[in-house]
Amino acid sequence: MNFGSDNVAGIAPEILAAIAAANVGTAPSYGDDAITRRLAAAVAALFEHEVSVFPVATGTAANALALATLTPVWGAIYCHEASHVQTDECGAPEFFAGGAKLVALPGADAKLTPAAIEAALTERGVVHHIQPAAISISQTTEAGTLYRPAEIVALGALARRHGLALHMDGARFANAVAALGCSPAELTWRAGVDVLSLGATKNGALAAEAVVFFDAAKAEGFAYRRKRGGHLVSKMRFLSAQLEAYFADGLWLRHAAHANRMAALLAAGLAALPGARLRHPAEANEVFVELPERTIVALGAAGFGFYRWGGAGSACLRLVTAFDTRQSDVEAFIATARDA
Amino acid sequence: MNFGSDNVAGIAPEILAAIAAANVGTAPSYGDDAITRRLAAAVAALFEHEVSVFPVATGTAANALALATLTPVWGAIYCHEASHVQTDECGAPEFFAGGAKLVALPGADAKLTPAAIEAALTERGVVHHIQPAAISISQTTEAGTLYRPAEIVALGALARRHGLALHMDGARFANAVAALGCSPAELTWRAGVDVLSLGATKNGALAAEAVVFFDAAKAEGFAYRRKRGGHLVSKMRFLSAQLEAYFADGLWLRHAAHANRMAALLAAGLAALPGARLRHPAEANEVFVELPERTIVALGAAGFGFYRWGGAGSACLRLVTAFDTRQSDVEAFIATARDA
Amino acid sequence: MNFGSDNVAGIAPEILAAIAAANVGTAPSYGDDAITRRLAAAVAALFEHEVSVFPVATGTAANALALATLTPVWGAIYCHEASHVQTDECGAPEFFAGGAKLVALPGADAKLTPAAIEAALTERGVVHHIQPAAISISQTTEAGTLYRPAEIVALGALARRHGLALHMDGARFANAVAALGCSPAELTWRAGVDVLSLGATKNGALAAEAVVFFDAAKAEGFAYRRKRGGHLVSKMRFLSAQLEAYFADGLWLRHAAHANRMAALLAAGLAALPGARLRHPAEANEVFVELPERTIVALGAAGFGFYRWGGAGSACLRLVTAFDTRQSDVEAFIATARDA
Amino acid sequence: MNFGSDNVAGIAPEILAAIAAANVGTAPSYGDDAITRRLAAAVAALFEHEVSVFPVATGTAANALALATLTPVWGAIYCHEASHVQTDECGAPEFFAGGAKLVALPGADAKLTPAAIEAALTERGVVHHIQPAAISISQTTEAGTLYRPAEIVALGALARRHGLALHMDGARFANAVAALGCSPAELTWRAGVDVLSLGATKNGALAAEAVVFFDAAKAEGFAYRRKRGGHLVSKMRFLSAQLEAYFADGLWLRHAAHANRMAALLAAGLAALPGARLRHPAEANEVFVELPERTIVALGAAGFGFYRWGGAGSACLRLVTAFDTRQSDVEAFIATARDA
Repeated sequence: MNFGSDNVAGIAPEILAAIAAANVGTAPSYGDDAITRRLAAAVAALFEHEVSVFPVATGTAANALALATLTPVWGAIYCHEASHVQTDECGAPEFFAGGAKLVALPGADAKLTPAAIEAALTERGVVHHIQPAAISISQTTEAGTLYRPAEIVALGALARRHGLALHMDGARFANAVAALGCSPAELTWRAGVDVLSLGATKNGALAAEAVVFFDAAKAEGFAYRRKRGGHLVSKMRFLSAQLEAYFADGLWLRHAAHANRMAALLAAGLAALPGARLRHPAEANEVFVELPERTIVALGAAGFGFYRWGGAGSACLRLVTAFDTRQSDVEAFIATARDA
Repeated sequence: MNFGSDNVAGIAPEILAAIAAANVGTAPSYGDDAITRRLAAAVAALFEHEVSVFPVATGTAANALALATLTPVWGAIYCHEASHVQTDECGAPEFFAGGAKLVALPGADAKLTPAAIEAALTERGVVHHIQPAAISISQTTEAGTLYRPAEIVALGALARRHGLALHMDGARFANAVAALGCSPAELTWRAGVDVLSLGATKNGALAAEAVVFFDAAKAEGFAYRRKRGGHLVSKMRFLSAQLEAYFADGLWLRHAAHANRMAALLAAGLAALPGARLRHPAEANEVFVELPERTIVALGAAGFGFYRWGGAGSACLRLVTAFDTRQSDVEAFIATARDA
Repeated sequence: MNFGSDNVAGIAPEILAAIAAANVGTAPSYGDDAITRRLAAAVAALFEHEVSVFPVATGTAANALALATLTPVWGAIYCHEASHVQTDECGAPEFFAGGAKLVALPGADAKLTPAAIEAALTERGVVHHIQPAAISISQTTEAGTLYRPAEIVALGALARRHGLALHMDGARFANAVAALGCSPAELTWRAGVDVLSLGATKNGALAAEAVVFFDAAKAEGFAYRRKRGGHLVSKMRFLSAQLEAYFADGLWLRHAAHANRMAALLAAGLAALPGARLRHPAEANEVFVELPERTIVALGAAGFGFYRWGGAGSACLRLVTAFDTRQSDVEAFIATARDA
Repeated sequence: MNFGSDNVAGIAPEILAAIAAANVGTAPSYGDDAITRRLAAAVAALFEHEVSVFPVATGTAANALALATLTPVWGAIYCHEASHVQTDECGAPEFFAGGAKLVALPGADAKLTPAAIEAALTERGVVHHIQPAAISISQTTEAGTLYRPAEIVALGALARRHGLALHMDGARFANAVAALGCSPAELTWRAGVDVLSLGATKNGALAAEAVVFFDAAKAEGFAYRRKRGGHLVSKMRFLSAQLEAYFADGLWLRHAAHANRMAALLAAGLAALPGARLRHPAEANEVFVELPERTIVALGAAGFGFYRWGGAGSACLRLVTAFDTRQSDVEAFIATARDA
C-alpha cells in the first residue's frame, strides 16, 4: 500500500460515473455549458454566499492563478516557509504573478501567525520595497494540522487592517471541514478569506480544482489569466461534472472523513510504539512520524510507500491517507512497524 | 447539431473505457507510473524515432510550453497571422516565453511560406532587434488546410539554415495524417520538425495533449516549465491512459478519417448550392463557407451551431466535424441550407 | 561628419553646465531633491496642465515603462509596424508589460490611422483574445514625418471610444513641436494623449527622458515599475538638472529647430540631384533618401556616417541631423553626393 | 551634513571633468565608441584577467541583469536576508529573472556562510522544487562589513561543488578593496566570483556601474537583456568616460579610502560615548550605531541626515560616509552626540 500521498489514489467511483454521465452529445466548450452553470450555483449554496467559480485541472494552477490575481507584480505574498506554494510548485506563483515575491515565514505546525506577518510587513509607499499584497495560508496545512476558525479570523482581521487579500490553499479543504465540523462558510469568507483554492483531486477527482472568489470584484482578470496560462480546459463540462459530483450529497465530506479516520488510526497506532514520535498532531489525513531507521527499512521492504520528510535519510515519515485507504492496510502498516 | 468546434464533442468510448481501466489501486503520481512509461514507448514506435513525451491537459499549454522551450526571452517566433497561437490563446506563448515576440506573417490558406519568413528575419547579433528563434506552423491549419510534406521540408530546411527551431501545432494532427496518408514521421522529424504539440482532445479525449520532442536535448527545461506552469497533472496515469488508448489500434486515425469524411460531405454539399462559396479547400475536418445571410439565419433557426468566422455579421461560417459527427446531421445541415 | 543618428551627438553646453551647477554639496537621492521638484513644476507649466513626471535615462525605458502601466498583461497595444517600440527595443515593451502583445499595423509614412486600428480591434470580453488596451504613436515618427494635431485628435477620439489609453513616443517630440509650431499641450493632452515619453537625449542631453502622465491616476504603479526595472537613478538631481536646462528659455525648441533646418537643407539639396528620391517628406530632423549606389559608396568613402535603411545593400539612406550639426557639413554632404 | 547614504554625494570633480572631456564631436552610439573600448581594456588590466564589461546606469540594473543571466527562470538564487537584492530593489531580480526565486538566508553581520547555503539547497532534478542556480553576496555588505578572501574562496568552492554561479554585488566594492588591501582579482575571480556588479555611483560617479563577467561564456545573452531592459544607454561614451576616470590613477581607491577613514573616525568617536553601541564592526564606509533616543533627536535637530535602521523609532542609526565627507562634519556629528 502506498501512503506516499493522497494523489496516488484513483478516481472515486461516483466521480467517474459523473464523467460518464456527462458524456452525452455535444456541449458548448470552455465553460459555457449547463453543468458548469449548475456547479456555480451548487458552490454558492455550499458556501452560503455569492461566488465566482473557476474550475482548473491542478492545484498549482489554482494557487498560482489566484495569487497572481491578488497582487501587483511588485507585491509581497506572505506564506509559511513550509507551504506548498513556497516549496513544491517550482516557483509557479512567482511566474504567474510576474515576479512578485513570496515572503516565507516561520510558525509552529506549518501555521502562519499574525505576529509573524506583522514583523515582516514592509513600509507602504516606499518604492524600494515590495509592497504588502496578500497572505496565503493552507487549510489543511502541509504539516497535516488545522487552523481553528478563530485563527483564521485573526489573520483575516490583520489582512483587512493592512489592506491585504487573504488566500487559502484548500488542496485538502475537505479534510479540514470534515475534521473541524465547521461549515465551509465559517472557515472562509466569514473569517475573512477572499479566495479559496478548493481541491478535489486529492480526495477522489481525476483532476479538478475550483478557484472560488467570494467577491466578484476581486476576480477581475482571472478569466484572462486562466486562458493565458493554458488552464481553460476546452471540454469544461468534464471538469465541472467531477466537481458537481464531489459536492453532491456530501460525498466530499464522507470521503474526507474516512481519510481522516484512517490517519487517526495510523497516528494512534504508531505513537504507541517505542521509539516513535509524532512530529505534528495528526489532525486531518496526514501523519508525520519519526521512527527508528530499522523500522523504516522494514516498512519499505514490506512494500509500503511513504516519503521520508526532508529528503533521503530523514527519520521522519510523511504518511497520507485517502478516500480509498483500507483499514486493513493501516493495520498492516502498524503491525509491520511494531514487529520491526 | 453543433458544428461550432470539434471540442464540443464528448469523449470517445474507447478513451473513457481506458480511464476506467486505469482506475485500479494506487499509482505513483506526476508521471512515474507504468501507463506513462508505456505511452512514451508507444509514441516512439508510432514516430519511428526516439522521443521525449510530456502529456498536458490543454492545447494552449502544449503550444506555449513548447515555444517557451525553443526561444530565449528576446527571441522571435514566426507564425501565421491566423494561427491559434497568435489569435486564440490570449497571449499564452508570450507569457510562457517571458515576453518573446510572435511575428505574425501572411500566407494563403493560413500556411506559412519560406519567403514570408525570410522577409521577416531580423539581423542576428544586433541587440536592438529580437533574435530569430523559432517557426511555428499548424498542421492541420486554422483554415482547415494541410501542408504537404514538401512544404514542411522546405520550412525545415529554412529553419536549419537560419538556426531556427521548428514547432508544429498539431491540435488536429490526426486529421492531417489521416487525410494525407503520410506516416507521422514523414510529417514531422523527417521534414525537420523539432517539437510537435500532438492533440487528442479535439479528436475524442477528455483533456489530453502530448508535447513530443524529437531531440531530447531540445526538451531541456521543459519539465520544470511544465511544473511551474501548473501543467504537471498529479494523477498523470489518467492523462496517459487517454493518450495510450488514442494511439492504440489506430483509433486516432479512424476517428480523424471519419471527421474528415463528414467535412468532405459537408463541403461538397454546400459548395453545390447557389450563392455558396468555399473560402478554403476543405482538406481535413473544417469547412469555411460563405453563404447568403438568409441561409445563415435559417440554419441558426433550425438549431445548428456554428461560428461566423471573423465575428458577428460575417457571411463566412466555420463548420467543424468530429469523431462523433453523424452523417444524418451533415445531410440535414445541407438540406436546411438548400431549402433556405 | 556622422549623420547616422542624433544620438551620436554630444551634450549641449547648456545642459552640461546645468549638471555642473547641480554638483554642489549633498542632496536627497531618488528624486526627493529640489531640482526634481522644480522640474515637475516646469513641465506642468510647459504643458499647461497638471502632470506626473518621472525622469529616466533611456527612451526604451520611458516607452516600456509607460506602456506597461497602460495595459494588463493580457492587453493589446496597437502600434505602427515601423515604430521604435516594435522594431528597435528588443522586445522591451513585451518584457515590461509581462508579455502583453504589440499589434503592428501598416500606415503611410509610419503613421497609424484610426481605420487600421479599428480593423485590428479584438472583441472585448472574449477570453481567447488579448484585450484592446492602448495605442502607441511616435511624434516625430520613425519616418521623420509628423502627425498633425487633427490626426492625433482623431486617434484620441478613437481611443476614448474604445476605452484605450493613448501613448506618444516623443523621443523627438521637440522636433515635432518646433516644426509644427503648436504648443506642447495641443499635441498631447488636448488631443487625447494620456502619456508622453518626452525625450531629451537625442536633442542635447547626456541621458535624460521624462515620462509625463497627464492624469495622475493613470500613473498608478509607475514608481514601483521604475524602481523594479532598475530605472530609478539614485543621484536623480543630475537627470532632473538636464531636463530643467533643456526646457529653460526655450533651449529644447531652439536646438530642435536648428536640427530641423539642417534636415530641410539636406533634403532640398539631395532631392534636386538626378537619381535621388525622398522616400518620405522630411518634416523634422530626418531625411530618408534613395540614392544611386555609386553615390552612396562615394559618401562613405568621403567619411560621412549614415544608415542604409533596411540593412546592408539598401539604396535608401537615413540621415539624421542634431542640435550640433553644422551647415558646412550638410553642404559638404550634398556636394559630395552631387559630384559622385 | 547628510550621512543618510553615499548616494546623496555629488560627482567627483575628476569624473565630471572626464564627462566634459568626452564631449567632443560625434561618437558612435550604444558602446561602439573609443572610450568604451578603452574601458574594457582598463578593467581587464585592473583585474588581471579577461573580462566582458557592460556599463549601466544603476546598481539595481547591474544586479538584476547579472542575476537574470545566471539563472533559469526556475532557479534559486541564495542571498543574505539583509542583502540589497532581497530588500531594496522592489523585486527587480525576480522581474528580470522571469520569476526566479531569491532564497533569503541568515548570517551574522550580513554575511552568507557555506553552511547556510548547504542547508537551503533543494534537490536537483526534482521538478517540484526550484533548482539551485546562483549565490549572490555583497562586498561591502549591507552591514558595512567585509568578506575576507578566505570567506569568498569558501563560497566559491561551494558554488563550484554544486554547479552554482557566484555573483558579487559590488556597489561598494571600492571600499572593500581599499579596506582589505587586496587586489581586485583576489576578491573576485581568484576566489571564484563569476560576475561582479562593480559600482561607481556611490563613490563619485554621476550614474555608472559596470557589470564585469570573468568568463565571456557566462555573459551569453547579457547584451540582449540589457537592451530589452532599457539599460543600453545611447550616448554610452559618457558612462564609459565616468568609469574610465574612476579607475584611472587609483582615483576609485583614494576616494574609497577617504570614505573608510571618515567612517572609522565616526565609529571610534561614537563608540566611546556612554549609551552607544556599534551593531556591526565598521569595516568600510558605513557605521551602524545604537544611540539613546534623546541623542538621535538632538542630531536630527542639529540638521544631520541619517537613517533610522529598521524604520521609524529604531534606536539604530545607519551613517554612511563618502568621497566628499569632511572630517569637520564627522567631528561635529560626534560632538553633537556627545553633548546630547
